[in-house]
Amino acid sequence: MEIIESTQNKRIKNWKKLLTRKGRKKQSKYIVEGPHLVEEAMKSQAVIESLIISSEKIEAYASYHEKAEFDVAVVTRDIIKLLSDSVTGQGILAIIKMPEKVKELSGLRPVLMLDEIQDPGNLGTLIRTADAAGFEGVILGEGTVDLYNSKALRSAQGSHFHLNIIHDDLKKWITAFSEKNMPVFGTALDERAISFREVEPMNRFGLIVGNEGNGVNASLLEKTTENLFIPIKGQAESLNVAIAAGILMFALYR
Amino acid sequence: MEIIESTQNKRIKNWKKLLTRKGRKKQSKYIVEGPHLVEEAMKSQAVIESLIISSEKIEAYASYHEKAEFDVAVVTRDIIKLLSDSVTGQGILAIIKMPEKVKELSGLRPVLMLDEIQDPGNLGTLIRTADAAGFEGVILGEGTVDLYNSKALRSAQGSHFHLNIIHDDLKKWITAFSEKNMPVFGTALDERAISFREVEPMNRFGLIVGNEGNGVNASLLEKTTENLFIPIKGQAESLNVAIAAGILMFALYR
Repeated sequence: MEIIESTQNKRIKNWKKLLTRKGRKKQSKYIVEGPHLVEEAMKSQAVIESLIISSEKIEAYASYHEKAEFDVAVVTRDIIKLLSDSVTGQGILAIIKMPEKVKELSGLRPVLMLDEIQDPGNLGTLIRTADAAGFEGVILGEGTVDLYNSKALRSAQGSHFHLNIIHDDLKKWITAFSEKNMPVFGTALDERAISFREVEPMNRFGLIVGNEGNGVNASLLEKTTENLFIPIKGQAESLNVAIAAGILMFALYR
Repeated sequence: MEIIESTQNKRIKNWKKLLTRKGRKKQSKYIVEGPHLVEEAMKSQAVIESLIISSEKIEAYASYHEKAEFDVAVVTRDIIKLLSDSVTGQGILAIIKMPEKVKELSGLRPVLMLDEIQDPGNLGTLIRTADAAGFEGVILGEGTVDLYNSKALRSAQGSHFHLNIIHDDLKKWITAFSEKNMPVFGTALDERAISFREVEPMNRFGLIVGNEGNGVNASLLEKTTENLFIPIKGQAESLNVAIAAGILMFALYR
């Protein structure tokens, strides 16, 4: 068994570049960390380029590499650390190819649209929650944090493998939904919005949630079918965006 | 204007101890960071012992210290950094006394009960969401992460000032609620639980959510009035605990 020990090894150097958005984009690959995400990748349609295992964990992760139909690299613990963003490294990583072509969104089930979400933890939780709610997909509007950021992937807990996730212009999609007579709901705190409790559950719609500080852009809110708010009873000024989206997704789609 | 410059200053050394749970407990004080939390502290019943401002921000924060009825300490930027847990320090902190005596929970509005919540971000978001949902208070069961952890306070965004929050034995409270004929709902994924959609909204109840990995302890679930689950439609295995609690709080209390 050959163990890669040098941080100067060419493969290691290339993989290390995947820790930045630029590097991921250039190579069209990303890293997932830990046994749960690696397992989710194996169960999914994702193309695994390499499985990277710490030499001391070779036996513990036997089930992951014994029948592997992809490249398996054994590396030192230090190299795992070098390639890992998490503090509590679990000794296993995978290099995944970004999907080349994304399936079309049919709109047969609801779609979540994200406008300039900044926090990777929020992005991941939004994706995980959309998956749990049974949504078809998520559209990441311009200015939204990178889906393949390690913190976003960790919070998504593998749900990015389950949903149809695309990067696109949200205005285009509001128009596309309107043309099919499917409503798109914005979220807003102003007087033009109605309480989400006034809307009957339905099967086909879009839901837009927005930036942590500024909410959904006004230029989008103008084009939506209706804008919704969640009535706040206490003294909190607002809800976390992932919490708000969770309440709305589970209320509007049953 | 005297500026404290030495990290060896006795007051600074005492304040620095507040960065640990042990130090906070010993001194019965905690630190809040940033203008938003300081402002929330001022608006609340909280006792502010000292306001600490970076010398370069004295003018920017004039409105905070001009009419202050408490001690104001001006310190160097490095000392702010020393006392601050956040990377993006905003140059203003306050030392707050922990409430000596907590108001009794009346149960006239719903109460959230937390069983071994580990992540400070989740704890803060749970408190913020309970506030927004109009809950009366939150009971932190044994094994729950410290409320005065800086990350928890940051996620709570000041809502810990608005709610009645106590540390106590959850079993005791389940019994107390039962004696008043108020239901306590656990959350569970097993077949003994019923869908939350089967429960009509109500005004007085307790809701227990549990540990991120293990959920609510079985010994608590045995004592509840009913245990609820959130039906999951997609391939996600579970919901984040704060998301689940948000969905339940806004569905059960309107």
